[in-house]
Amino acid sequence: MTEEMKPESVALHHLGAAAALDPELLCIFGTGDLGRSLGQRLLQSGYKVVYGSRRPHSCGPVPQGAQVMSHAAAARSASLIFICVHREHYDFIEMMAPHLEGKVLVDLSNNLKKDMYPEANAVYLQRLVPGAEVVKGLNTLSAWALQNGLLAGKQVFLCGNSAKAKHAVAEMATKLGLTVLDRGSLSAARELEDFPLQLFPQWRLPLCVALGLTAFFYFYLLIRDVLYAYFEDGKDISFRIMVSLANKVFPIVSLIMLSLCYLPGVIAAFIQLYRGTKYSRFPDWLDRWMLCRKQIGLIALGFALLHAIYTFIIPIRYAVRHKLISRVVDEMKNNKTTPFNFDNTEAWATDSFYVLGILGFFLYVLLGLTSLPSVGGSLSWREFNFVQSKLGHLTLTICTAHGYIYGWNKFLRPSTYKWYTPPGYMLCLVVPSIVLVLKMLLLLPCVDNTLTRIRQGWERTRLREEEGEIKATNL
Amino acid sequence: MTEEMKPESVALHHLGAAAALDPELLCIFGTGDLGRSLGQRLLQSGYKVVYGSRRPHSCGPVPQGAQVMSHAAAARSASLIFICVHREHYDFIEMMAPHLEGKVLVDLSNNLKKDMYPEANAVYLQRLVPGAEVVKGLNTLSAWALQNGLLAGKQVFLCGNSAKAKHAVAEMATKLGLTVLDRGSLSAARELEDFPLQLFPQWRLPLCVALGLTAFFYFYLLIRDVLYAYFEDGKDISFRIMVSLANKVFPIVSLIMLSLCYLPGVIAAFIQLYRGTKYSRFPDWLDRWMLCRKQIGLIALGFALLHAIYTFIIPIRYAVRHKLISRVVDEMKNNKTTPFNFDNTEAWATDSFYVLGILGFFLYVLLGLTSLPSVGGSLSWREFNFVQSKLGHLTLTICTAHGYIYGWNKFLRPSTYKWYTPPGYMLCLVVPSIVLVLKMLLLLPCVDNTLTRIRQGWERTRLREEEGEIKATNL
Amino acid sequence: MTEEMKPESVALHHLGAAAALDPELLCIFGTGDLGRSLGQRLLQSGYKVVYGSRRPHSCGPVPQGAQVMSHAAAARSASLIFICVHREHYDFIEMMAPHLEGKVLVDLSNNLKKDMYPEANAVYLQRLVPGAEVVKGLNTLSAWALQNGLLAGKQVFLCGNSAKAKHAVAEMATKLGLTVLDRGSLSAARELEDFPLQLFPQWRLPLCVALGLTAFFYFYLLIRDVLYAYFEDGKDISFRIMVSLANKVFPIVSLIMLSLCYLPGVIAAFIQLYRGTKYSRFPDWLDRWMLCRKQIGLIALGFALLHAIYTFIIPIRYAVRHKLISRVVDEMKNNKTTPFNFDNTEAWATDSFYVLGILGFFLYVLLGLTSLPSVGGSLSWREFNFVQSKLGHLTLTICTAHGYIYGWNKFLRPSTYKWYTPPGYMLCLVVPSIVLVLKMLLLLPCVDNTLTRIRQGWERTRLREEEGEIKATNL
Repeated sequence: MTEEMKPESVALHHLGAAAALDPELLCIFGTGDLGRSLGQRLLQSGYKVVYGSRRPHSCGPVPQGAQVMSHAAAARSASLIFICVHREHYDFIEMMAPHLEGKVLVDLSNNLKKDMYPEANAVYLQRLVPGAEVVKGLNTLSAWALQNGLLAGKQVFLCGNSAKAKHAVAEMATKLGLTVLDRGSLSAARELEDFPLQLFPQWRLPLCVALGLTAFFYFYLLIRDVLYAYFEDGKDISFRIMVSLANKVFPIVSLIMLSLCYLPGVIAAFIQLYRGTKYSRFPDWLDRWMLCRKQIGLIALGFALLHAIYTFIIPIRYAVRHKLISRVVDEMKNNKTTPFNFDNTEAWATDSFYVLGILGFFLYVLLGLTSLPSVGGSLSWREFNFVQSKLGHLTLTICTAHGYIYGWNKFLRPSTYKWYTPPGYMLCLVVPSIVLVLKMLLLLPCVDNTLTRIRQGWERTRLREEEGEIKATNL
Repeated sequence: MTEEMKPESVALHHLGAAAALDPELLCIFGTGDLGRSLGQRLLQSGYKVVYGSRRPHSCGPVPQGAQVMSHAAAARSASLIFICVHREHYDFIEMMAPHLEGKVLVDLSNNLKKDMYPEANAVYLQRLVPGAEVVKGLNTLSAWALQNGLLAGKQVFLCGNSAKAKHAVAEMATKLGLTVLDRGSLSAARELEDFPLQLFPQWRLPLCVALGLTAFFYFYLLIRDVLYAYFEDGKDISFRIMVSLANKVFPIVSLIMLSLCYLPGVIAAFIQLYRGTKYSRFPDWLDRWMLCRKQIGLIALGFALLHAIYTFIIPIRYAVRHKLISRVVDEMKNNKTTPFNFDNTEAWATDSFYVLGILGFFLYVLLGLTSLPSVGGSLSWREFNFVQSKLGHLTLTICTAHGYIYGWNKFLRPSTYKWYTPPGYMLCLVVPSIVLVLKMLLLLPCVDNTLTRIRQGWERTRLREEEGEIKATNL
Repeated sequence: MTEEMKPESVALHHLGAAAALDPELLCIFGTGDLGRSLGQRLLQSGYKVVYGSRRPHSCGPVPQGAQVMSHAAAARSASLIFICVHREHYDFIEMMAPHLEGKVLVDLSNNLKKDMYPEANAVYLQRLVPGAEVVKGLNTLSAWALQNGLLAGKQVFLCGNSAKAKHAVAEMATKLGLTVLDRGSLSAARELEDFPLQLFPQWRLPLCVALGLTAFFYFYLLIRDVLYAYFEDGKDISFRIMVSLANKVFPIVSLIMLSLCYLPGVIAAFIQLYRGTKYSRFPDWLDRWMLCRKQIGLIALGFALLHAIYTFIIPIRYAVRHKLISRVVDEMKNNKTTPFNFDNTEAWATDSFYVLGILGFFLYVLLGLTSLPSVGGSLSWREFNFVQSKLGHLTLTICTAHGYIYGWNKFLRPSTYKWYTPPGYMLCLVVPSIVLVLKMLLLLPCVDNTLTRIRQGWERTRLREEEGEIKATNL
């Protein structure tokens, strides 16, 4: 704050002038796509940039305002060096180790596959230049995002053994508009290098479950519907595989997935009730299950959407039109009048069935919308809770009722149980019914009160009474 | 900047090294979920963390790297203390008042209900420890968001009587990636404590209006359609309650809500024209109405979506199929030929009706998409204005035309006015028609010019001419 | 860090106290909407604010806590001055030039139209006050966004000739929660002033292409269907214009737009293969095309959505119901039985056609969801790539197959080629088929390997071998 000595001049004295007067110089090794995009972005944020290149005079275009030098000269001039070079070429860095003594090296490299090398790139780099302070990070940024200024608020990870070095990199990253999360020491480097290689890791398990259920019910219904009709009645209704079967399988899988989304919460509540405390960890499988509830719910929504579209196109299908026409013609020829009597109960039942389906789908879509990051992020905790818990269970209840009404007048008919197997919609109602019954048990006042107390930190165990008292005081 | 004295070493001297060398120590009272998550996050951001606990040796797990001490020892070691303890247990803090002299206390507590206590938690805390500088804030963060690093760009509020203390907390919060908004003195604490308890406050009024309209039109149509058919014709068409009635009510409510979304803007323009200035405040009811336009529009979209789905499933309903079949059979038996003559006008009218409905719904969905925070935020002001004003009024026009075409050939038939009441679709066209007529008046060149001048700061009043001139210069 | 001299007091010494003790004073010229909103926001962020006004005593309300002075007095008191005044009134600033010597002037002004003045507002301001350091920026902020605290993470642009001045403004903007992007010298001011005036610039070209295609196919089908039927068969089927024609045009345009979305990527790959390097720039038209692929894809999705809704309402149309009824009656009267034989092939073909359409639409929607900023931003680069490339080409394949199946049994019938013109769906399959064939060529192992090597920096040219080697080392 030595600039304050000129009291007559107010100009700029508050404005962090020292830093502004002398923009910091950063060095980048490597003039590839990433190196150039990063340099351009650093120049925009007010840094000076110097590139280190093996052949400084023929390295291709660099951003306007940046200098190109030999690796050694570039390294000497800056305290922070970005390594934008493939790991395969790190050997030249080893030769330059004397120039890198005490410098911060930011390793931005990624590999093409997991486990290509026995040690992480950053760990390897640290071994090559023991005197430097290696920080792994920013490797999740793409040249494309850097060029297009899509960094605002984006979260990046750092790790490294030197807190000082990490702090320096974090400060630079914050200036670029990034949000930095420190992941600890350099041993986390492998984890960070695996980030850009991951492909929907949280979607794997839910997708496998959904595909497994789909395959199972497809074959189950194929046997019960198509094969049964072929062997027992000699009819070829194989064309049903495309639309009719799918439109039975999709709602079944959707409803099961939706109930699987709320089952772990119910199980967790019962575990807490049984243990009488919230301070012991859940089993691992339950933890993992709870972490992918969002994905399970979104897959359920996807199947519900497919079910809706399949339902909308029913009346324009050839088979449906044909059935309608031939039924009329049949009626006329045989002069039967039975089906023409309007059945009020049937009208009520089918309309209720459709209405429950529509309302369920509508709530499904609302749930899906609140899981969009930008919508969910603007809700308060109580609002998010209300939507995901109250609205979620309401959706499950309505969709389950939709399923029950479908079979309301069929479950006592023997013809329903072809080859002694229950129809698909009965099987799919098992899990949701269990979830809803358990949830209703949890809403009984006596159970609910105990659970609320447990979740506020109360513990049932006598022996740990005092400790429990402490915990109850904490938020 | 005293570190610059070692000129031979470039390493790190620019990098805010002072701060990095000596990470700041923060204290957290309370080792509950929130306390632990906050501590973990602070450690990740490069702070040192010490927990204050009544029984430091049996307080359960704390994040790796944090220390646990007695409350007094912890308080002495840090200048900033987070209070993650339920308000019911603040009494221990009073006993510790001497150790808290001059410290910044951040009160993160929330209550379970509004108005549980006569004074806000933070005000109570300040009264217990008058020598400390209490800052209320960060209480909208959940342990869940802290653990999952969902803080980037999230807005948090602060209030407190000491600017210095607020600045310190704001700086810490900025490092966590939060955006801080200062809400003034500690008297705002109650407001901040009410934030996490609020449940869709801006949705209340629009939802009430929508539900009121739905109930009114449901009963109105119930009387006109179902009861009329029962009393006058002796027919039981009660099954229509489920789908047919709903599919009349939903578009009616949707159209009225959509016009209610654009009515306040038109009213505001007329008020400005009448007053001849934009510098006097609108009446309170208009201000509140204008603030919930987005919610009104989204509810209108929800009803429109329901209307669309209800329409799509019409042909698969039992009653509709039955009617179709019995009509054909009827025709055949009585050998009537009238309806088989293809009516070109009817085909044009119904198709236009559907096309207007589809285009209206499509624009509705576009409007809804731009009100997603992440989409709306990426539009320039002119683009947002274009979508919400131009596209919005176009949607209203198309949907109103959809309503008019529905009844184009019915409004002169006496049978339309059962029991001397107008049908629902006529009632619902009143408000949109008024809005559109008023909007068209505003678009007349002479009116539009005056309004534009008023909105640029010009004032009609002669006496205030000079002042008006000043205002017209300002952006 | 002089505060550290009181070693017994830990309170606040780390907390950037210097800045907090003495909040910086900023000056705002102009007390209009923008000036007042900006001042309020600056006060919230801990600054002191003084307004400069021509008539300090009658300038209307200013935010609580701000002072109002004459322009000259306000200018003297602060080093950073925001100019929130219309350009038309800049002349008073010229008179005040002596007071503005060495100050930073932030020009926030915008114009009503592009190219209203020969020079940018900020350049004009700099010419009026040569001794000041003019920074253009923050002009994309609206008073509305400032009032409602919608700044978190928002990107704003700055430009100016003085790095020091830009740094000061950037620091202030960062405190407001904005992300700052430096656009260089003051010569970029015009570009910045054009930003708030732009209206979907990236959507223009794609929208024009889509509308052109729509118009062309509308007229083409109008001639082939409606006019052909009128002139050859004497039938008036003009009512088809509304729904049937549109429902043929929308899928055609949608499929062509989708293939246009993937065509530039394929062309770029072939150019790279031909040139044997990735280091030469693409032609300008290809660059522009690639930059609007997202918009092209979203427009294709919009047309696909319209196609879906048009399809869903088919069975409730008057013409369709009439055709169904009259067909049955016809059958009965003439006692024909041919169409009542259920055609299994027909059932399979139409159902496959619908299923492919549904799946294609479903994938379309998934693609659209990932292009929402908040969803796309949460994907890793590999995930985004997977969705947009793999899933995108899968969508194109399925939708193309949907088109092929539509005409599977018609392309050999002479009646298909009315007036010797091919039907619309044949025309629309040309581009997608080309894209898919070219893409399949690129996926051949030998081509794919070469392309991968080129994209990793390898170059075919012998002469530049060494240089290529260097590039291959860089990320």
